[in-house]
Amino acid sequence: MDQPLPVILPGSVAPGRDPLEPKAGRDTVRRHNLSLVLRAVRDAGEITRAGVSARVGLTRAAISSLVEQLLESGFLSESGKTFSGQAGRPGTVLKVARTGVAGIGVEINVDYVSVCVVDLAGTDRVRLVEHLDNRGTPPGQVLHRAAAIAARALTSALEQDLSPVGVALAVPGLVSDGTVREAPNLGWSRVVAEAPFTAALAALCPGLPALPIRSENEANLAALAELWFGGSGRVRTFLYVTGEIGVGGALVLNGELLRGAHGYAGEIGHVVVAPDGPRCRCGSRGCLEQYAGQNALLRAAGVDGCGGADAVTELERRARAGDGRVLDALERAGLMLGRVLAGAVNLFDPDAVVLGGIYRELTPWLMPPAAQELCAGVVSGLWPAAGNRLRPASPAADASRGAAALVVQDVLTDPLSFGTRVVPG
Amino acid sequence: MDQPLPVILPGSVAPGRDPLEPKAGRDTVRRHNLSLVLRAVRDAGEITRAGVSARVGLTRAAISSLVEQLLESGFLSESGKTFSGQAGRPGTVLKVARTGVAGIGVEINVDYVSVCVVDLAGTDRVRLVEHLDNRGTPPGQVLHRAAAIAARALTSALEQDLSPVGVALAVPGLVSDGTVREAPNLGWSRVVAEAPFTAALAALCPGLPALPIRSENEANLAALAELWFGGSGRVRTFLYVTGEIGVGGALVLNGELLRGAHGYAGEIGHVVVAPDGPRCRCGSRGCLEQYAGQNALLRAAGVDGCGGADAVTELERRARAGDGRVLDALERAGLMLGRVLAGAVNLFDPDAVVLGGIYRELTPWLMPPAAQELCAGVVSGLWPAAGNRLRPASPAADASRGAAALVVQDVLTDPLSFGTRVVPG
Repeated sequence: MDQPLPVILPGSVAPGRDPLEPKAGRDTVRRHNLSLVLRAVRDAGEITRAGVSARVGLTRAAISSLVEQLLESGFLSESGKTFSGQAGRPGTVLKVARTGVAGIGVEINVDYVSVCVVDLAGTDRVRLVEHLDNRGTPPGQVLHRAAAIAARALTSALEQDLSPVGVALAVPGLVSDGTVREAPNLGWSRVVAEAPFTAALAALCPGLPALPIRSENEANLAALAELWFGGSGRVRTFLYVTGEIGVGGALVLNGELLRGAHGYAGEIGHVVVAPDGPRCRCGSRGCLEQYAGQNALLRAAGVDGCGGADAVTELERRARAGDGRVLDALERAGLMLGRVLAGAVNLFDPDAVVLGGIYRELTPWLMPPAAQELCAGVVSGLWPAAGNRLRPASPAADASRGAAALVVQDVLTDPLSFGTRVVPG
Repeated sequence: MDQPLPVILPGSVAPGRDPLEPKAGRDTVRRHNLSLVLRAVRDAGEITRAGVSARVGLTRAAISSLVEQLLESGFLSESGKTFSGQAGRPGTVLKVARTGVAGIGVEINVDYVSVCVVDLAGTDRVRLVEHLDNRGTPPGQVLHRAAAIAARALTSALEQDLSPVGVALAVPGLVSDGTVREAPNLGWSRVVAEAPFTAALAALCPGLPALPIRSENEANLAALAELWFGGSGRVRTFLYVTGEIGVGGALVLNGELLRGAHGYAGEIGHVVVAPDGPRCRCGSRGCLEQYAGQNALLRAAGVDGCGGADAVTELERRARAGDGRVLDALERAGLMLGRVLAGAVNLFDPDAVVLGGIYRELTPWLMPPAAQELCAGVVSGLWPAAGNRLRPASPAADASRGAAALVVQDVLTDPLSFGTRVVPG
């Protein structure tokens, strides 16, 4: 179904209480147009007011007024440089500010915590990664550790004249309404994560206002990072699968995350690929994770040191050296992955399947068997053997960066809501 | 991501050529508001102008002008009856017209053709079903037969002062851009269906203007019929699975059909449930269809006469009588169905799974094993054993009705586009 355009003449809007559609007063319209202008400048990188006017489709006068407000609030900056590539008299060049609003993303995974600060342009300005064993630690303590790393990132952001306006937490599990319902590989069940994290962060940064927080599944956020920063492909509908201790998944449909009815969509790691297979932590049997999760893969390959990044490096080294047991384990994991992916492609019809996490490095070995299963299992040859529809994720596909960018996305959608938090650059 | 409100002050819109967002002139705004009013009346059933004003959030004066135009164009009708349930002076009651615009839906399936005419209120006004063996017949001839049935339905619609403004074709296969790419159970491959159908229909109805046509996967249209007419549940995110000769599927997400990147989403019948299973028409092995499709089920149950509705009735009769072989076949089909559904629920996180087609009648036998597999296979108990999230489709879930309603939906979205076709009632 095509969406009707929710366009209403503000002049004819009555104060009705039960509207069919969103309506708009002048304030809403201005906020929306501020967002249009800010996003136009962000997407262009550098652009004149005339360029913004052509791109957004509002008059030069309207654009000038909106740009003025965005400059004053610190969202845009202006350089004296003129720009003559466009018709009309040359103007100064607008860019999004490299100081001021920013977002903090925090990924809590099984064996590491990663924190990233992203500015309004989407650039990764601070990045801290610490390898920790979060599985053996009570959730409160893990959240406290993560807050300590976030506090260090925040200090570093402030030193760069950035002013983070929010935090997003990425967790490898089912997240809904601020609660981690289940994160089996962390051993978390019904963990309220947001309030303890912000309390810890506020205690560590006593001078700063408390930051709003949200939490989200880590595969979802890595998929958003791939969508926003993955570059080349410009694919807007894809299935993202990430190999970690578990196997995460996310569906992106026309550039939007598909969350499902309760926010739990994309749980590809617990799709059963062999009903009589080994028991999984989720309670089921023969889940994909039991064949293609990091620990299962290391175990099958005979590589010790489950859980560490070193073990995956060792796996890769042995695969390169032609170790038969390792190659067999990777082939089996690729086949199982391909089977589940073929089913997912039949259901969701994506333009691409993107392999992230440890799969990115293991692509040379996982891709051939997975591609074979996709060709065989996707209905009526809709998955051609040629082409690069099955592809490794870009290095940008990182859950903490996606989390930070999600905060920035809120700013881009309604800059005025964040106006008071801005530190002028 | 939340969608920003695409609301723009029409007064400030410049004739830019590269807009970021849809913009609106006064004409677009009026067309949109006509749609809002028409849908408000349709949803309410009976309503005064004051009621419409409260519902839509536009002034009484604006509503009166819009209603006038909709009355003149024949989309609304007005009764002399006053209605005093609302505040303010009583007014006459508005309803959508029971004459004038209507949609024709035509389902071409393996062993039948079904035609339905739906009016602006969504009521099913004409229905014709003919059992035919379409599998053994060249596509051109099948389309000609279907056009002949549609012509009879059209005649009957005209006798009721309805004036169909378009046709939608429902086909059990992969449909994209007017071409049936593959419909393995019809034996169709790359069949251009729309032009031959309208040509045949135009030849049979020489006095009438040629009707615009579109085509769509039949499960998608049955799912839309379930969404629009299914009643009680009001579930807006569900997976619809229909048992036919093949097994069709559709995903509805927040009240919208999820079509995927190429329009082929929902192909659940070709999700592989047993990689070493029997060869399927699609070229793969062990597809769900090979266990839970009508023919596979009848064969496993030892019921003759594959393909006929009579055979399914016989299957049901024997199941009721406790025939062991039939009960075993149904249990196995239910298990396989449940396995594939569990995977689909993990990926898509729907509020409900709705069983249509032959599954609707076979629910008493298919549901227990399917529910058991769902409980076991959906991650971390997100599919509780209790509740009615797995449910039979309503009798309204009919592809030809969904197809006809899809045409009507276009009218509701932009009534002015259909204004000239309206026959005054």
